[in-house]
Amino acid sequence: MNRKIVFYLLGKILCIEAVLMLLPMAYSIVYAEKSVIAFAITIIFSLGLGFLLTVINKPKDKTFFAKEGFVIVALSWITLSVVGALPFVISGAIPNFIDAFFETVSGFTTTGATILSGEQIEAMGKGLLFWRSFTHWVGGMGILVLVMAIVPTESGRSIHIVRAEMPGPIVGKLVPKLKSTAKILYLIYIFLTVLEVVLLLAGGMNLYESLVHSFGTAGTGGFGVRADSIGSYSPYIQWVIAIFMLIFGVNFNIYYLILVRKIRTAFKSEELWCYLGIVVVAVSLITYNIYHLFGSFWEAVRQSAFQVASIISTTGYSTADFNLWPGLSKGILFILMFIGACAGSTAGGIKISRIVLLFKRIRANLKHMLHPRGAEAVRFEGKGVEAETLNGVMVYFALYFFCFVIIFFILLFEPFGFETNISAVAACFNNVGPGLSKVGPIGNYDIYSPFAKLVLSFAMLLGRLEIYPLILLFSPTSWLKRRKIKSR
Amino acid sequence: MNRKIVFYLLGKILCIEAVLMLLPMAYSIVYAEKSVIAFAITIIFSLGLGFLLTVINKPKDKTFFAKEGFVIVALSWITLSVVGALPFVISGAIPNFIDAFFETVSGFTTTGATILSGEQIEAMGKGLLFWRSFTHWVGGMGILVLVMAIVPTESGRSIHIVRAEMPGPIVGKLVPKLKSTAKILYLIYIFLTVLEVVLLLAGGMNLYESLVHSFGTAGTGGFGVRADSIGSYSPYIQWVIAIFMLIFGVNFNIYYLILVRKIRTAFKSEELWCYLGIVVVAVSLITYNIYHLFGSFWEAVRQSAFQVASIISTTGYSTADFNLWPGLSKGILFILMFIGACAGSTAGGIKISRIVLLFKRIRANLKHMLHPRGAEAVRFEGKGVEAETLNGVMVYFALYFFCFVIIFFILLFEPFGFETNISAVAACFNNVGPGLSKVGPIGNYDIYSPFAKLVLSFAMLLGRLEIYPLILLFSPTSWLKRRKIKSR
Repeated sequence: MNRKIVFYLLGKILCIEAVLMLLPMAYSIVYAEKSVIAFAITIIFSLGLGFLLTVINKPKDKTFFAKEGFVIVALSWITLSVVGALPFVISGAIPNFIDAFFETVSGFTTTGATILSGEQIEAMGKGLLFWRSFTHWVGGMGILVLVMAIVPTESGRSIHIVRAEMPGPIVGKLVPKLKSTAKILYLIYIFLTVLEVVLLLAGGMNLYESLVHSFGTAGTGGFGVRADSIGSYSPYIQWVIAIFMLIFGVNFNIYYLILVRKIRTAFKSEELWCYLGIVVVAVSLITYNIYHLFGSFWEAVRQSAFQVASIISTTGYSTADFNLWPGLSKGILFILMFIGACAGSTAGGIKISRIVLLFKRIRANLKHMLHPRGAEAVRFEGKGVEAETLNGVMVYFALYFFCFVIIFFILLFEPFGFETNISAVAACFNNVGPGLSKVGPIGNYDIYSPFAKLVLSFAMLLGRLEIYPLILLFSPTSWLKRRKIKSR
Repeated sequence: MNRKIVFYLLGKILCIEAVLMLLPMAYSIVYAEKSVIAFAITIIFSLGLGFLLTVINKPKDKTFFAKEGFVIVALSWITLSVVGALPFVISGAIPNFIDAFFETVSGFTTTGATILSGEQIEAMGKGLLFWRSFTHWVGGMGILVLVMAIVPTESGRSIHIVRAEMPGPIVGKLVPKLKSTAKILYLIYIFLTVLEVVLLLAGGMNLYESLVHSFGTAGTGGFGVRADSIGSYSPYIQWVIAIFMLIFGVNFNIYYLILVRKIRTAFKSEELWCYLGIVVVAVSLITYNIYHLFGSFWEAVRQSAFQVASIISTTGYSTADFNLWPGLSKGILFILMFIGACAGSTAGGIKISRIVLLFKRIRANLKHMLHPRGAEAVRFEGKGVEAETLNGVMVYFALYFFCFVIIFFILLFEPFGFETNISAVAACFNNVGPGLSKVGPIGNYDIYSPFAKLVLSFAMLLGRLEIYPLILLFSPTSWLKRRKIKSR
């Protein structure tokens, strides 16, 4: 393990976080909020520590392998969240550190689960609320992808970092150079975010709220500024946010293909059509199921479409308390939480491409049973899929359920019902945000004990980083000295 | 597809079912119940049809492959259940055919889910109740394994049938000859059943109830004769049944090893220790969790041990309405429903060996990530596991969850809560029986619509036959003419 490069990159991350925090601090200054001091202290601390780590640890040997990639990613995300929680604690807005940590992890992992009540959110200062939502935006595309995009390339091995941070079964480069890929991804991300801001401004939303909600949508996070999430905004605003939630759930490769005019290839994507197919079926069924609650067809369509877009993209905004909807609608939303949106998007969940690959692997197995001598290759997006990729998907699927059961088991010690606990795990682990029952859209996670909050924070990180980085971080063999690596 | 042999074996199965029905008919005669006519009609019908199929279809070519094995198993189980439901319908005890079919499928698949209320069960005649429980015993070890054991060997390829009917990831033969393996399995099965009957008689239970409950325990089924299941029997009886439920959840290979004095090998079984480990942990936690409900430590231990044994072995007997227990206990029982007991036992669920194999596969993957060049072989029960077996387990796991979600999705259209629906699927698909909430130990499945009952019956068959046979039965390519097979 090349520890020097790990801590060196960690230093860089801390410096970047300090710089990112200047934006919410600017809001605190403009609105003369006392949180400005909290931001200032955090920025100085973060910069100082970051500077120290980059100077002391300046590594001569800049090579690293998959192992270092996983450890860097896991450590970065934990450090980001610890430091990111400080402004809430220092300003006194969320005095308890564990609560603030939960909220910040929820932000960076783009979960959007909150321990704050509606009134607490509305009472919070603009600077802090801006930071809370800005973490969604930063976490959505990935902080290390950002590092790759802006910091001079450290090593030709950076693919290991991107692979550890980017969700999905197959991480490819859009262009041969990784640095350019990271830049293109961020440019698309920024363009779409700005587009949403403009459309929200056009709907009469003020700049501050447009920014906050665009951050929450772009990262598929879900933090807002009002007690009823998006419920009290106009239908136009609701439609804009619903559509953008879906847009940010699409694999960014598709946008790149459109950008380079390979539109036909883009629209051939199996994952895209599956995604849209699931959305259409879910919206139709829920519309039919909740029609009697609203009386108006279009009202029912809008409510249904918004909630489906929100849950499948694992954003978590809401325009209605879907916890009060009939069992069919709640059940469909619960299933959507697990599916999630496309790989290579900012969304969480298992990802549609994994599910499609599993489905194809099962079908190949059935064919093999009927015709034992015929080799059944699996094809996806027009290409043959390697056996190693398929095995990786199957192992991930099993690991996913093992983690799910373990987290659910720990939550059982909390004094809540079955529906609350299982949906809390589903909502955090899949980075959705609101669950059902007590943790539904109008509830919050403050009901849980501090220990459970830590477990759920861990679940959110597990979900966002797709499990492996965190397990490998805590595996002692990851930390063995470099000698072993050279011997490989 | 060698259709002749399929229908020929189906005929044999019908004849055997007719013979098996003589036993409950004897009870009907002794107690002068009117169900005797229902049994007589069914037996004549079954024998006639069976005779017809074996005579008309007498196949010259007795070879068959995996495909035929799956189709025979699937068709046999459906036919068995349809014919097995007739006595209930004809006698008027369960006038609706779908209800009777549900009850019989539940019997043969050793689920123990019922559409009857406690009063209806207690009002049913002895002959019919005997048949209801006897289906558990027949389904537990498998009807086709029985055919293999008693009918003159039809073909050297019978392993394909046993493989399709026996649960678990690896189906091996105890001795080189399959016929002898089937005989040994049934002899162990009969010996353990008789042992339980004797111990129950020793506890003061009458012969009839001893038989019925031993059938229910041996098959890990769960049908009883009283409204409160095992609740009103003495603690001695409850302990005997609890221990035998655990015994029938053990891989029968272990008993064979003990029989041939390879005791050390038997007690080295990883699956066995995992099974016992899970039981001890679950019993301890639930005892701690329900202690305040009973006040007495030993009472709490007994209640906890009984319910844990019942659920992990997927039997479904109960001595308490665990639906009223705290969330931790309910949650643990819910998790146990999925785990199930050992492969090669009469229990349902995913099976512990599969979970151990998945866990080891995940660990190998993590090691591979840290040391990409080291080959990580998976070992289980002292032997290396082939990649194909591991892949099979992973594909099964994915398929299992796909089926689970589809069945759950269909049940969402029923007007019941989340907990009722999800636990109904878990309890039927894993062949447990009682679930939580409305389908808990004191509830029953009559609340569901006829369509949902059919879906749940299908779920029970899927669970018992481990999915593949039923899918392949409904796959058109399974039914292609023989020519294609020869060309392989």
